[in-house]
Amino acid sequence: MDRPSGKIPEPTLSRLSLYLRSLRQLAIEGVKTISSARMEAHCGIVPAQIRKDLSYFGELGKPGTGYDVQHVLARLTEIMQLDREQRIVIVGAGNLGSALAGYSGFTHSPFRIVGIFDNNFNKIGRMLWDQEIIDVESLPEISQQMRANVGIIAVPAQGAQPAADLMVSAGIRAILNFAPARIEVPPHVAVRDVDLTRELEVLCYHIDRLSPPEQDSPEDTAK
Amino acid sequence: MDRPSGKIPEPTLSRLSLYLRSLRQLAIEGVKTISSARMEAHCGIVPAQIRKDLSYFGELGKPGTGYDVQHVLARLTEIMQLDREQRIVIVGAGNLGSALAGYSGFTHSPFRIVGIFDNNFNKIGRMLWDQEIIDVESLPEISQQMRANVGIIAVPAQGAQPAADLMVSAGIRAILNFAPARIEVPPHVAVRDVDLTRELEVLCYHIDRLSPPEQDSPEDTAK
Repeated sequence: MDRPSGKIPEPTLSRLSLYLRSLRQLAIEGVKTISSARMEAHCGIVPAQIRKDLSYFGELGKPGTGYDVQHVLARLTEIMQLDREQRIVIVGAGNLGSALAGYSGFTHSPFRIVGIFDNNFNKIGRMLWDQEIIDVESLPEISQQMRANVGIIAVPAQGAQPAADLMVSAGIRAILNFAPARIEVPPHVAVRDVDLTRELEVLCYHIDRLSPPEQDSPEDTAK
Repeated sequence: MDRPSGKIPEPTLSRLSLYLRSLRQLAIEGVKTISSARMEAHCGIVPAQIRKDLSYFGELGKPGTGYDVQHVLARLTEIMQLDREQRIVIVGAGNLGSALAGYSGFTHSPFRIVGIFDNNFNKIGRMLWDQEIIDVESLPEISQQMRANVGIIAVPAQGAQPAADLMVSAGIRAILNFAPARIEVPPHVAVRDVDLTRELEVLCYHIDRLSPPEQDSPEDTAK
């Protein structure tokens, strides 16, 4: 009924994830309803942006009352398809792939790593954590029996496009790309680039700008 | 004169990095001035949000004319402290630390990795890429002679806080935390958590939602 209509801008989707985090916290705190103005304090996004972002998904809020926390939380979780298991294959069993395969942050999430692939014959057949590393050439046939729909590219820049091509052949619909290279995919496949440089840029702003502990925080100044 | 006054919200800083990327591209294309309305098409942020974000840094735009691309680009680069070398130490020479130490995306950036540390005596003294892995206990004394001001935490969750504590003792002012754990630092130290779960959440929205190639794109339908 109130399915998203038209294309949702990528920055909106990125903010939905922030709203989800705020809403999960508000639900834990027992907050029933929240205005977009009060949401700003929780997630740092201006009310006009919050209302515009949420308006893509129909009438989620009521004028004068605001948003029903549980309702919007449930709707966004469903819209983001986080109410079901999301099965992930990783291409690249090098340092990054190994780190991702052992990532403990997935424990309370819908994400499950179901396969790890590489093109290096010294790695294929070896165990990585509890999984055997599989020849990436067999990704198209094996991925479907694994019911994977998300792929993570964890190969060097020059290997990113071949990895993406194999993922597309495998029917993967969403790719998280850690390689510092642009990849080309058909329009039905979503790509998100993890840009480490951007994370560092944001951080650098703060260097030598944050104030030392206030005088009235003796436990901090004592350090 | 027009230094940022007061605390800049974290989401604003994150968007500044997006604006920087748009402005760099606009400068390459030879665009001289741009309105916040036209900026929206480049970065997907509503004009009200762009104006609010940039207003933290004084009068960067002129009513009716918009923003001078070169001027705002130079100002934001300076404000974000990206006009100088930023020296990074990594704590954790495991899979993730190794991947980060070899990250090729830093090539055209102000970021330079100057030291890699670990607490594992089997790793200390070994070479990782072109650097020797150093005992993390010596981070406080060595980091200052390295003139490092950014630290990357690439250790498992339970090692994150000890790593952060050593970084703080070492005078590190900004920490990028890859461990899926909250770290506590004094108020003069900035922390940014890289949340892989969030990246995947945004991506999952798209699964089975993007349309297959349009009929009028024969080069795509031919695949």
